[in-house]
Order: sequence, then structure tokens, then C-alpha cells
Amino acid sequence: MSDHVYKLIELAGSSEKGIQDAIENAIAHASKTIRNMRWVEVIETRGHIENDKIMHWQVKLKVGFTLDQT
Amino acid sequence: MSDHVYKLIELAGSSEKGIQDAIENAIAHASKTIRNMRWVEVIETRGHIENDKIMHWQVKLKVGFTLDQT
Amino acid sequence: MSDHVYKLIELAGSSEKGIQDAIENAIAHASKTIRNMRWVEVIETRGHIENDKIMHWQVKLKVGFTLDQT
Amino acid sequence: MSDHVYKLIELAGSSEKGIQDAIENAIAHASKTIRNMRWVEVIETRGHIENDKIMHWQVKLKVGFTLDQT
Amino acid sequence: MSDHVYKLIELAGSSEKGIQDAIENAIAHASKTIRNMRWVEVIETRGHIENDKIMHWQVKLKVGFTLDQT
Amino acid sequence: MSDHVYKLIELAGSSEKGIQDAIENAIAHASKTIRNMRWVEVIETRGHIENDKIMHWQVKLKVGFTLDQT
Amino acid sequence: MSDHVYKLIELAGSSEKGIQDAIENAIAHASKTIRNMRWVEVIETRGHIENDKIMHWQVKLKVGFTLDQT
Amino acid sequence: MSDHVYKLIELAGSSEKGIQDAIENAIAHASKTIRNMRWVEVIETRGHIENDKIMHWQVKLKVGFTLDQT
Amino acid sequence: MSDHVYKLIELAGSSEKGIQDAIENAIAHASKTIRNMRWVEVIETRGHIENDKIMHWQVKLKVGFTLDQT
Amino acid sequence: MSDHVYKLIELAGSSEKGIQDAIENAIAHASKTIRNMRWVEVIETRGHIENDKIMHWQVKLKVGFTLDQT
Amino acid sequence: MSDHVYKLIELAGSSEKGIQDAIENAIAHASKTIRNMRWVEVIETRGHIENDKIMHWQVKLKVGFTLDQT
Amino acid sequence: MSDHVYKLIELAGSSEKGIQDAIENAIAHASKTIRNMRWVEVIETRGHIENDKIMHWQVKLKVGFTLDQT
Repeated sequence: MSDHVYKLIELAGSSEKGIQDAIENAIAHASKTIRNMRWVEVIETRGHIENDKIMHWQVKLKVGFTLDQT
Repeated sequence: MSDHVYKLIELAGSSEKGIQDAIENAIAHASKTIRNMRWVEVIETRGHIENDKIMHWQVKLKVGFTLDQT
Repeated sequence: MSDHVYKLIELAGSSEKGIQDAIENAIAHASKTIRNMRWVEVIETRGHIENDKIMHWQVKLKVGFTLDQT
Repeated sequence: MSDHVYKLIELAGSSEKGIQDAIENAIAHASKTIRNMRWVEVIETRGHIENDKIMHWQVKLKVGFTLDQT
Repeated sequence: MSDHVYKLIELAGSSEKGIQDAIENAIAHASKTIRNMRWVEVIETRGHIENDKIMHWQVKLKVGFTLDQT
Repeated sequence: MSDHVYKLIELAGSSEKGIQDAIENAIAHASKTIRNMRWVEVIETRGHIENDKIMHWQVKLKVGFTLDQT
Repeated sequence: MSDHVYKLIELAGSSEKGIQDAIENAIAHASKTIRNMRWVEVIETRGHIENDKIMHWQVKLKVGFTLDQT
Repeated sequence: MSDHVYKLIELAGSSEKGIQDAIENAIAHASKTIRNMRWVEVIETRGHIENDKIMHWQVKLKVGFTLDQT
Repeated sequence: MSDHVYKLIELAGSSEKGIQDAIENAIAHASKTIRNMRWVEVIETRGHIENDKIMHWQVKLKVGFTLDQT
Repeated sequence: MSDHVYKLIELAGSSEKGIQDAIENAIAHASKTIRNMRWVEVIETRGHIENDKIMHWQVKLKVGFTLDQT
Repeated sequence: MSDHVYKLIELAGSSEKGIQDAIENAIAHASKTIRNMRWVEVIETRGHIENDKIMHWQVKLKVGFTLDQT
Repeated sequence: MSDHVYKLIELAGSSEKGIQDAIENAIAHASKTIRNMRWVEVIETRGHIENDKIMHWQVKLKVGFTLDQT
């Protein structure tokens, strides 16, 4: 029962609003093709700059999801 | 006078609201037993996902506090 | 002939028995959907504790498998 | 045309409001002397604590900017 | 309800029998003074050698336990 | 519009000719099953030696590709 | 007999004289509350500068001490 | 006489031809504003992909140059 | 008397039985040419897979031995 | 008032006398062109050997200085 | 039969021609004293600069060779 | 002429006096069996504690020496 197997994938998501929104965007997008996501870990946080302002934020994420449902 | 000694501990805090709130929760909680906290450093940022949404955020922190008051 | 291409994926497996069993569980489970696995590398080893005992062991793994069969 | 050269510098910025504001403060400040900034990466996130509250947030950043305009 | 706070400590445990036994020794020993341990992560695995044999195994561990029960 | 989501995968490619050729081999091979690749990062560079000569080069790569076209 | 358990803590110490003195200060200070210290490892070495001179040195340390005496 | 002081900067250079050319491009470009460069270290190697081909290579570099000439 | 000098070497050992046996194999093999080994640290743990089973385990080790006997 | 911005640069300094002197040399030298230095962190410590003796010590440093005075 | 033991050594090689040539130089040179080399891994890539040009390339390598032939 | 090959070894040395003396001890000791040492890099600095005092210092070092003289 406790012998679960998870798979981890790496995603990069972005947002014009902020760091947390970029994470949530990536999860929302990934949910279209991945079921049973369990956790996300932030690997890298970046901002892309135009005219001295951060125009969008980009996060690199590891996402874990369960493989063992049948 | 400048020969301070600090101790560093590692905490994990969480929040349903967001990353910054999870950090502040951990500090607020730690303040019940630790005095003279001076700084906190974020070591790891994670989110726990249910039904394709981040239900709570979890941060791993290093917290430094002064040992040398008498 | 020697120009192989491998893909690497990241898995987390667990077991109530021990570290090595958790690794073998993850490989056995992954073999249901992945063919031609070649090697596994242990990235992280953890234990989940209940009542002061390790109830199950969890390993994070990188698994490499060949892409170049047709 | 695609043979750009970027320079990367390391900055530390701070803010009383939050993490994202500390990043934007550092970029705004750096824009006074650096032109053509392209991206920023967050290297470290810290908070300075007084009376059990985070009084200001501090971020360490790498900022990349183009060298090849003439 | 989900706003738990964990504390992490670092331990080193040893055993003449093997790696897994050294981890369990450290947890058993730590349970005398720490309540509510939740997980353990293996940081480093070493063996001490005498007469060309590993006489005891030593592991370095991070252990997380809940702070928020009252 | 700027809210792209990328997925990153890890590949290992090889070549008898050299490092750069091993990278290009892996990308060419991956293009059979992955569309919209955007960038590749070299994680590890190795050579396999027979009779005191490097017989083939092997690279470990991270490859990013866009998920957000429909 | 060889099944010792150690605990590791992280300290930061400082000195106006130099690096080695900062390490010894931290150990001397820690000895007021911690018994049976066995080893110290230097994690980080810094200097605080005023008027173009290093006014005090600061070291971050891991200290290991035995838990198993009764 | 042997008490040299070096400064290190971080650059990113690119080339359509290859990795080594990208490094040499960055050094050639940097030589317009920096004198007395002594060494370069490759920190990161990437390729940007269009239509399943690497269109240009990008390297991140640390460059050291002498400060002590007068 | 306490001014010992150690040398560290890196070995990779393997075993069909398991992780611990691979470590002991490497130490036993190394003892044919190296005297006065004192400790071993596990750097990497891998398994080689054939037909969806781990056929042999491979460990990368650092081994320390005393140089100062005469 | 607390919204300071720091810049960090990387230096390498050396000395025939010792590690601490190499750090102080680099700071003294850097003070000729950089004002308002606040802290230094040691990144790497090396010695250059001639005739089996360390002829000079070399340190790699990160130095932080304030940008926000006007 | 599969219980091989490898030893790993660290080398630095150089070349005026390029990165790959520096790796091959080191292997060719090492083959004079080391038999049964199996693989090489690139740890660090540097270039030494004179008059704004890379005069020679230097690589740091780990080389693995079999110990178990008799 | 510039195509030198270096070998790097890892040593641990110790001293009752201090960090720098432990480095010099290790180099002096190594010079009995290794010729043409060129540089040393400090990898780790530790102190062994007895009765709340550092009784001896231990350093882990990488030492590079030339292979190419004949």
C-alpha cells in the first residue's frame, strides 16, 4: 500500500504578474496532460527585462506525480 | 564587542496563501521558543498539489539567532 | 553503431523493507511502461518515520533507457 | 547577427515589502548606470528579522546585459 | 490546519552491521529526546576500515520533526 | 502571450567524431519524437576509451521544448 | 560500543583578529551550553569591511558532539 | 612582486559555428574594453535550436584579468 | 604525533548482490595494493539493468589511507 | 532607507605570507578603485608550490560594496 | 565476473589547438604509465589568454581504468 | 611546449598549530614521494576538539604536479 512510485518532470513556466503566478501557470498548463500531480519544487527563478522593467517572470520547476493508479 | 556567536537552525514552514506567508509563519512559530532571531535564508520552495492546484506552499529555511546575550 | 541516444527520467520509489527494495520496486514498476532500461542512479535516500520507526524508505532515482531501437 | 556578447553582474537588493519588490528595486537602481539589461536570476533570498518579524527582504541576483550595441 | 512548522536537525549514527542499521540506530537514539519525528534524509554514507575490513558504518542524516503540537 | 510553458528532458547522445557531433546527434534523434525544441544545455561530457584512444564521445544534455502550441 | 550517535549544529562566530581566532571563539562560546564537542568544520569564511579594512572576520561552522553519554 | 590582484568577470558569448568559436568571440569582444586578460573558464554550454538544428551556441564564461599594472 | 597525512583515492566497485557488497568488494580488492586504509565514503550509487532487473550494483568511493608510517 | 543595493565583484589576490594576508592584499588593492566595500567572502584558497614549498598563497574572493550613496 | 573494480584519477591536459585535442593529449600522455583506461569525464575547461587570444586550452579530467586484470 | 599534463591527488594533512601549518605539513610530507608539485587547493578545513579546545586542525587538499618531464 505504501509502495508508491512517482515520476518527476522538469517544467519552465512564466507569467507577467509574478513568481507565484508563473508556478501556478505551469501547473495549470501541465494538468492538461498529466494526472495525479502531487508536489512541485522551484529550481530556478528568473525575470526577463525590457526597458529596465521585468516584463515576465520565469520559473524552472520539478513536478512529481503518482504512477501507481490503475 | 564584535565577537558575536550565532546559531543557525533549519525549519520548514507552510502556508495556504503563498511563499512569503509560509516564511513568515515559520518565523512567527519559531519566535515562541527562540529569542533574538536575526536573519532567515530560503533554502527550498515547494508546493503541494491537490486536484491540479497548489493547496499549500512549503519553504525550507535557515534561521540565525544570537547566542551572546546574558 | 556506437551512436546511441539515451533518455533519462527521474523516479521516486518506496518500500517498507529497505533502500535496495525501494530501488527495485521503482524499476519493476517503471518496466510496465518503459522498455530498454539500462542503468539507474540513486539521487536521494529518505525514510518516513512513524512512532519513532522508519515505516517506509523512499529513493529518488535517475533511470536511463535506450531510444535507438526501431 | 546572432553573435551577441553579454556581461553578467551580481547585485544584492532589498525591500521592506517583499521578495519581488526587492528584485525590482535592484533592477530599478541598476538601470541608472547599466543599459540594455536583458534578464535577472535570483541566486539567494533572505529576510532580516527584528522583534520576531521580517523587517526587510534581501535578494542576491545575477543580471545579464548586452555589450554588443555600438 | 495545514500550516505546520517542522524543525530539521542533523545527526550522525553508526552501526557494525550496515548502512540501514546505522540509520535506524540514529533514529532510535534520537527518539529518546525528540518527539514527533516525521522523516529522515541520508546526507553522507561512510565506513571506517580496520585491517582491510569495514568495522562500522557511519551515516550523516537530516531528521525533520513537527513543532506544532501543543 | 508571454505565458509559455516549456518541458525539459534529459538525454545522453554519443558520437565517434567529437563532442559537438554527439550533441547534434542527440538533437537529430530526439527530433523524431519531440517537436518545438528550443534549447539544449550540456550537463556532462565523457569519452569512452579503448586501446588508449577515445572511441566515442558521450554527452548528457537537458533539452527544452514548448508545450503551448495547440 | 561503536554505535555512537552525534548531533551536528551550525554556528557562526567572529573575531577582530583572524579566521582561526573566530573559529576558536565560536567553540569557546558554544562550550558554555554544549558538552562533548568532537569536531568542527568550516563552511564559510567572510570578512566585514569598514574604511577599506577587514574589521572582523566571520566564520560559519558545523560542530559535531556526542549524544550517547548517560 | 608576486602579490598580483586579478578581477574576474562573467560573460556570455555565442557563435553559429561552435562551442570554441563562441568562447573566442566573447574574448575578442571583451578585449575592446578589458586589458590584460589572463584566463577564461567555461561555466555553461548551451545551444539554441530552431527547426531541430542548433542555430547558435552560447557559452557562459568567467574571465580573469590583472589589475596591478599602473 | 597527531600530524598524520592521509591520501585519498577514488574507486568504483561492483557486485551482483547489493550496495553494501559492492563497497566491501572494492575495499577487499584495493587491500591487495594499498595498506593502512582508514575510511571510505560513498560518492555515487548506481545499478546496471538488464531485462528490467538490476544485474549488478556499482558504487563510486573515496578511500583514505595513512601515509605516515615508516 | 533600508532599500540598499549592493554590487558584488569577484577578485583573486595573493601573498607570500599567508591566507589572511592574501585577502587583505586584495582588499587594499581593490580600495584604490572601489569605494564603500562592506564585506568579503572567501571562495577558494590555493597555494603555488616551488621546490616543495608554498611560495605564494592565492585566494578567490567575492566583495560586496554599496551602490546607493549619491 | 561482473565484480570489476575501477580506479579513478584526476588529470589536467592542455593543447594549443582546442578542447578536444587537450583531452586526447592527456589520455595519450597517461597511457604511458596507466593501462586499461576505460572512460574519461571532463571536469573543467579553461583557456589561457595572451594578447587577447587563447594561447592554449586546459582541461581537468577524471579517468577510470580497470584494476582487476591479473 | 605548452602541452603539459598534470596529475591531481587528494591529501589530508593535520597540525596542532593551525590551518596554514596543516597545509604545509601535507606538502612537506608529500614531497618525499612526489616530485614537481605545482599547486595546492584547500577543499575542506576541520578541527578536532578535545575538552572544548581545537587540539589539531585537519585540511583536505588537492595537489597538482607535472607528469611531463622525462
